[in-house]
Amino acid sequence: MNSTQRHEEVVTGPEERAGRTVVLGTETPLTLDSGTELGPFTIAYETYGQLNDEKSNVILVCHALTGDQFVTGINPVTGRDGWWPLMVGPGLPFDTDRYFVVCANVLGGCMGTTGPRSDDPKTGRPYGLSFPVITIKDMVRAQAMLLDHLGIDKIFCVSGGSMGGMQALQWTVTYPERVHAAIPIGSAAHHTAQNIALHEVGRLAIMGDTDWHGGDYLSHNAIPRAGLSVARMAAHISYLSEAAMHRKFGRQLQDRETLSYGFGADFQVESYLRHQGEVFVERFDANSYLYLTRAMDYFDLIAEYRGVLADAFQGSPTRFCIISFTGDWLFPTSENRTIVHALNAAAANVSFVEIESDKGHDAFLLDEPEMFETIRGFLRGAAEHWSGTTQ
Amino acid sequence: MNSTQRHEEVVTGPEERAGRTVVLGTETPLTLDSGTELGPFTIAYETYGQLNDEKSNVILVCHALTGDQFVTGINPVTGRDGWWPLMVGPGLPFDTDRYFVVCANVLGGCMGTTGPRSDDPKTGRPYGLSFPVITIKDMVRAQAMLLDHLGIDKIFCVSGGSMGGMQALQWTVTYPERVHAAIPIGSAAHHTAQNIALHEVGRLAIMGDTDWHGGDYLSHNAIPRAGLSVARMAAHISYLSEAAMHRKFGRQLQDRETLSYGFGADFQVESYLRHQGEVFVERFDANSYLYLTRAMDYFDLIAEYRGVLADAFQGSPTRFCIISFTGDWLFPTSENRTIVHALNAAAANVSFVEIESDKGHDAFLLDEPEMFETIRGFLRGAAEHWSGTTQ
Repeated sequence: MNSTQRHEEVVTGPEERAGRTVVLGTETPLTLDSGTELGPFTIAYETYGQLNDEKSNVILVCHALTGDQFVTGINPVTGRDGWWPLMVGPGLPFDTDRYFVVCANVLGGCMGTTGPRSDDPKTGRPYGLSFPVITIKDMVRAQAMLLDHLGIDKIFCVSGGSMGGMQALQWTVTYPERVHAAIPIGSAAHHTAQNIALHEVGRLAIMGDTDWHGGDYLSHNAIPRAGLSVARMAAHISYLSEAAMHRKFGRQLQDRETLSYGFGADFQVESYLRHQGEVFVERFDANSYLYLTRAMDYFDLIAEYRGVLADAFQGSPTRFCIISFTGDWLFPTSENRTIVHALNAAAANVSFVEIESDKGHDAFLLDEPEMFETIRGFLRGAAEHWSGTTQ
Repeated sequence: MNSTQRHEEVVTGPEERAGRTVVLGTETPLTLDSGTELGPFTIAYETYGQLNDEKSNVILVCHALTGDQFVTGINPVTGRDGWWPLMVGPGLPFDTDRYFVVCANVLGGCMGTTGPRSDDPKTGRPYGLSFPVITIKDMVRAQAMLLDHLGIDKIFCVSGGSMGGMQALQWTVTYPERVHAAIPIGSAAHHTAQNIALHEVGRLAIMGDTDWHGGDYLSHNAIPRAGLSVARMAAHISYLSEAAMHRKFGRQLQDRETLSYGFGADFQVESYLRHQGEVFVERFDANSYLYLTRAMDYFDLIAEYRGVLADAFQGSPTRFCIISFTGDWLFPTSENRTIVHALNAAAANVSFVEIESDKGHDAFLLDEPEMFETIRGFLRGAAEHWSGTTQ
């Protein structure tokens, strides 16, 4: 831990509504996986609940691709609910009457943490594509620097779904001694060919938009709206299941009795997707989307350990709870089971729950009582084996 | 049958390399489902094998979304193999030593049949978006006019995969008395919400491309390359299975040893998809893609029969062979089984085969011995119950 790191609290970050921010890496920059040194950089984060005197009640929540630090309550940027309101709060599984929940916008993000939309201190202009490509491990390193800043040595539990689950896994591998328990949900030890392919479609939609201007759209006072919207729509389909789409929309028409014989949004599912795309463009940066999808594509704990994933977890002191959903075709149970097998091979402490749900990959964000009960039970057990106290 | 229809053989159609073409609907236009009248219009088609004296050995092949009339041999436009070379030819399941195989480019297509790229005879300029939205049934009606022109009353068998399967089904419903046997492969009685959603992403990618120019790109000497390419990439992912992509590409890098930490095509699957997109732009018209995907989305035999699909097949004299593939998540077995159940409820003559394959929706185009054997056997049986002769 770089406890010698100089840092300062700032009231506003690059995003004026980003809430709490801290500037890190001023004296000692962060060396990224690419070899590039990054610093100073800003991390925007939120906390929920109270840190106890022993600093032993920390739950680090890691957000997914398009998530942010606003886990619950009203997101001041979007004016909408946070993304995990059923998980984090008083009396909820991540009980803020008991735990101190920390969530930081990831490196490369666009909600206050330094990313391609931020100004490069060397030029005073937005990084754009000159921002270095970052990895899941880089995100985790930056989070560790944030915890150093907060004086938190060890975290009781780290959790997240999808890209958040990748970060949770990476935490247990990069900083095993700092993580008592981990709950990666709907995650994987590497991104599959199909996942990479879906991301590539989204990236080319963005980069093919003439308003992208080689990544320099801010200088051109433009936004690659059409491309980013298409990227979101394609991704959104992959977050749902066929069954969920059928149940939700079927072939129902939108605000009409008969087919239009045209190319408007005749069907509800078309109207819904278009809306998802439009809303997303208002809240998300196109270049950030490129960088974060790339980080997910690059994630490969299996290759990092030369094909033997168990080696990643040898001697791990962490207690794991791996959760998957039957209806998730993006991060299917098979990928999660690969993690479980490796943990078993490394004689790690692991629970595995596959939850019956037809809601697709997004299930981890939704009302899934079995997930909540699983996590409550796992945290109870983890607390019993915890040298600190979470009360 | 409009045997009074005036028609003429022309040597070259709108596409000079489109092969055989015929102009139809000159005196009596085709009334489309939208209510619009279309005529005159050109149908480009190919035939393989010899029509027997009784005109009783006709197999009508219907192509899929991006297919065309060049079923086998070298496609003169692309210079590549036709799309069903393992199915159609001497000694193959659709044996051209025995059968007379006819395949027409669908209405709305871009390989010689009239579509949005064709000149509107009223203006002398390309239709663009003024081309009427067409349906699967409209495609089938146009094919029936072609068969009338060829003097063919009844077809021994109609077959096709995907959108071709939709046409085959529609043939049995619209012209039951003209169809002795039908083999819809990897098909469905309606397009699902997920299928519509995937198409909508492709359409918005095209329509969001500034080079689309509201559909009038030909006048602007432009092509919406980026958008059409993205549409193809997204669709292509849906034609494969996760297993096939994993087997074919995994996380293998393309022409490099290490990650680039950039946004080029690091992974083989990215390179492959980009190539698919680029090649497609060279051979396919963007507006045609809009019209044909729309026709598929609009296809709904179930709604047409007020929710009772069996009513579509009441008293059907046709012998059906329905084929699905286990690894097809776009037109899954469940959708094909819906057709089978309706046929059974209508006491129609139906065989159903689900073929074990992890090659995804594209399996019908590939070397699937069980599919070939099924079709050979089915055709043998169909020939035994055929009042004509196929010898």
